Amino acid sequence: MSRYERENIRRMDGYTWGEQPDDNRTIKLNTNENPYPPSPAVDAALQGLSAASLRTYPQPTSDPLRDKLAQHHAVERDNIVVTNGGDEALRLALTTFAAPGMAIGTLEPSYSLYPVLAAIADTPVFSLPYQDNWTIPADYAQQANEHSVRLTCLVNPQAPSGVLTPVDELRRLADSLEGLLLLDEAYIDFIDPALNHDATPLIHEHDNVLILRTFSKGYSLAGLRLGYLIGCDDLIDPIVTKTRDSYNIDHVSQTLGLAAFMDQNYATGTWQSVREARESLKLNLGQLGFEIPPSETNFLLARVPEGNESAKSIYEQLKAAGILVRFFDKPGLNDKLRITIGTPEQNQQLVEELSRILKL
Amino acid sequence: MSRYERENIRRMDGYTWGEQPDDNRTIKLNTNENPYPPSPAVDAALQGLSAASLRTYPQPTSDPLRDKLAQHHAVERDNIVVTNGGDEALRLALTTFAAPGMAIGTLEPSYSLYPVLAAIADTPVFSLPYQDNWTIPADYAQQANEHSVRLTCLVNPQAPSGVLTPVDELRRLADSLEGLLLLDEAYIDFIDPALNHDATPLIHEHDNVLILRTFSKGYSLAGLRLGYLIGCDDLIDPIVTKTRDSYNIDHVSQTLGLAAFMDQNYATGTWQSVREARESLKLNLGQLGFEIPPSETNFLLARVPEGNESAKSIYEQLKAAGILVRFFDKPGLNDKLRITIGTPEQNQQLVEELSRILKL
Repeated sequence: MSRYERENIRRMDGYTWGEQPDDNRTIKLNTNENPYPPSPAVDAALQGLSAASLRTYPQPTSDPLRDKLAQHHAVERDNIVVTNGGDEALRLALTTFAAPGMAIGTLEPSYSLYPVLAAIADTPVFSLPYQDNWTIPADYAQQANEHSVRLTCLVNPQAPSGVLTPVDELRRLADSLEGLLLLDEAYIDFIDPALNHDATPLIHEHDNVLILRTFSKGYSLAGLRLGYLIGCDDLIDPIVTKTRDSYNIDHVSQTLGLAAFMDQNYATGTWQSVREARESLKLNLGQLGFEIPPSETNFLLARVPEGNESAKSIYEQLKAAGILVRFFDKPGLNDKLRITIGTPEQNQQLVEELSRILKL
Repeated sequence: MSRYERENIRRMDGYTWGEQPDDNRTIKLNTNENPYPPSPAVDAALQGLSAASLRTYPQPTSDPLRDKLAQHHAVERDNIVVTNGGDEALRLALTTFAAPGMAIGTLEPSYSLYPVLAAIADTPVFSLPYQDNWTIPADYAQQANEHSVRLTCLVNPQAPSGVLTPVDELRRLADSLEGLLLLDEAYIDFIDPALNHDATPLIHEHDNVLILRTFSKGYSLAGLRLGYLIGCDDLIDPIVTKTRDSYNIDHVSQTLGLAAFMDQNYATGTWQSVREARESLKLNLGQLGFEIPPSETNFLLARVPEGNESAKSIYEQLKAAGILVRFFDKPGLNDKLRITIGTPEQNQQLVEELSRILKL
């Protein structure tokens, strides 16, 4: 260990990422990727790129992409900052708004990166558990304020439960919190459109709301690292002009991201397919005895049936059979598996393998 | 201005990047890009990429690229961390080793990003001016130690002067400094190979030396954002496992970077061409009355001839004529222009335009 390492870095553990096997045989239902490839427009954009275009620095602030995103969300360019995946957006929110010692707030269980980013930023974490039905405790804001929470990070729809918190409740939370509310909408694209869920108007009503989006899931571009934040211009400006790395998004990502985003028809088609597969898989897993809260994401949090097989054992047997799902070895989650929605064929194989493991 | 912005962020100014015109007519000699396109191997790698490969998360730690870099530098994989451009490497060095309040050291003038990163990290900057012949003051280490400097950032070969500090002097500095020494070797590839300059062995002798490299200049990939740090494994490990964004390098950059790096023949050919053009341009500018220190980079810092035309005026007239060079409006630099080496044709056009402006 280096004598130069900062004390807070020395004390912390790093993020544990999901397994990324480099074979093509594994059925990968562990890191919430979209089971469908990106739009053909991304292939076309790739073929249209020349190495020569990489000789010079990229457009520093990803403005062509920002403009397209702004138009889509009916906001202005100044309400958007493009980031190197959603993870950079989270880090930049801490860097810009949370000085060391200022607390970060979360609900538990949640995205395991939040406490890691807090440790790097040397900020404490204040967290309350979700209630049994995955609702936010009514006194979260009050308690967060009492603990001087500067920034609350809330995944919505939630991870790992998949449950959606309605906009009215988010509005009340934003009203009540003395700090910022960052809505991590990594999975927003998979919500049933009939619900008409849209939190974007909150950024006009509140000077303390940031919304995070990513291309990793909805646009099948996890390998590209592209995300963005939406917020009032006072919140976005210091990130764009000060705390972001000067050229944070490379030319390829700007180009391919724009191509993917312009093809909304294709993307929404994959979302619809994922939703259909989700409901079907939920039904099948329910028949095997799994208990699953309503999911508006591209994954299910499935509590394993009571019996001889623990969640960990099922995870391991699935892995041995070439099917990866996510198992979190912590209280409240160690009786569950988080299962990404695959293609109908992959889901079918999963169900068959689970039937075998559970001897049903 | 948001009431949520951190005090140190509120007080600071952001980085001012060089102009990036999006036309193809401008002769761009302002941001030290390589005048030659990347290797044809990068084009081949681009054509070989499929959008489908972007559906899943990238290899988290860029290991295939790390292994190749390690082999080239005769170090181990654990001595290397790949970063989103050299800028991320600098930021991560601060994040990992310099707690708020710990001073960052530099020599002035230097890369204007250093004080910006220090302001973001809420660390003060201690700096001494280079001596008149661009050497480092003999008492720099002593003074830096007295000011408890945690991390000294030194561009070598220097920017904006282009002057090379020899390895023996760097070794003495590393020996004397109580903090870390980060050698920012962004321009290392353009050094005359006859000088046999190689600072890499310092990482084996010292537990306080980090070396920064970038693909932006030497490999003509500024648009891709790819760099790396070399150091003893105790310094590299916390960056790889803790402070880096979990998937900091996307799949495209890993693939294209590897393709570019494997084609050393092509890259070294461009470096040789740039060196030849550099010596020729230096001669021509000298004949026009510019004073230029010896450069081992892909740019020249040219003091304008005494007379009627200020550096700023020449910069503006060049710009009006479609030639961009860099002008820094600060003491010690405001009588100079920093001119990136272009192709022989571009350099010729520059010289002709300067002759016209100076009425020679």
